[in-house]
Amino acid sequence: NNTPHDRFSNRGMTLEKDINDTNNYYLSRGLCVIHKKPTPVQIVKVDYPKRSAAVIKEAYFKQASTTDYNGLYKGRYIDFEAKETKNKTSFPLSNFHQHQIDHMEDIVKHEGICFVIIRFQAYNESYVFPAVKLFPYWHRQFKDGRKSIPYTAVKDEGTLIPASFPALVDYLTVVDEIFF
Amino acid sequence: NNTPHDRFSNRGMTLEKDINDTNNYYLSRGLCVIHKKPTPVQIVKVDYPKRSAAVIKEAYFKQASTTDYNGLYKGRYIDFEAKETKNKTSFPLSNFHQHQIDHMEDIVKHEGICFVIIRFQAYNESYVFPAVKLFPYWHRQFKDGRKSIPYTAVKDEGTLIPASFPALVDYLTVVDEIFF
Ligand SMILES: [Mg+2]
Ligand SMILES: [Mg+2]
Repeated sequence: NNTPHDRFSNRGMTLEKDINDTNNYYLSRGLCVIHKKPTPVQIVKVDYPKRSAAVIKEAYFKQASTTDYNGLYKGRYIDFEAKETKNKTSFPLSNFHQHQIDHMEDIVKHEGICFVIIRFQAYNESYVFPAVKLFPYWHRQFKDGRKSIPYTAVKDEGTLIPASFPALVDYLTVVDEIFF
Repeated sequence: NNTPHDRFSNRGMTLEKDINDTNNYYLSRGLCVIHKKPTPVQIVKVDYPKRSAAVIKEAYFKQASTTDYNGLYKGRYIDFEAKETKNKTSFPLSNFHQHQIDHMEDIVKHEGICFVIIRFQAYNESYVFPAVKLFPYWHRQFKDGRKSIPYTAVKDEGTLIPASFPALVDYLTVVDEIFF
């Protein structure tokens, strides 16, 4: 569960770090321009000491209204969220907020490429799970549906991301396969 | 000059606010999905009080490595930076950092739509100035060129953005004209 607290205290940051490293590699090779968005912060108090940089003295983590990553690949807009779970049998939908789902639905409507990267830590497997396959699970949970996506469904409906070096989470190869 | 200090202390935020309002209107009308990226902050110290939200106690503004805004419009990737100046005769290139120019050059290379919105506060005029027209001015300054873009050049090579309500900076109409 990737709350701001978790994010800062370093739990659940492995996937994010792996993707950031992969993006830096992609960028250096000129393959795409995809960046992590900065963590949204509500700034309350700032000091402006003379002769040195402004210091933020009070601020709070805000809930993100969009996704973690976006950018440009082969002339197409790309947008995705990265989530990992310790769970072995399913991926809990509580990892998402309604805002993020709304955003992903907008992206699909406007013909962007949109997906989630889901990592099962127990198996060290990361999957590209297209947003259009996520939406039915999300909406079903509110009408007596289950509140998670079974691991087997992620395996079946998603695509395993190959790991290599330095592309630790080489998701562009999967994007090529699914969206181009 | 849109340094983090300026940004927080509210100077030079009018254009940003006008664009954010315009984007919210665009989003609500389903015209595009374009957001301001959060201000990048380097977090140094966080308190986790019991029974209440984490409080950031020490943090610093970081220089942005990309641009202010990006998103998706009519299936195309859009990326832009917003800058305003009090200057009446030219727009100083010191408003940009090399990082941002590098980023914009990458976007153009990968076939994204990329531009700057430049506002001359004295005239209350905002222009779409395409990134490809900015690059020559940027590079020329290092070989005895001038360190600003003349107001007349912004007028000639850029396109004046119409202001309406609630689209205070109705840049999509200009994007339609230039890029589609
Ligand atoms: Mg995430
Ligand atoms: Mg700006």
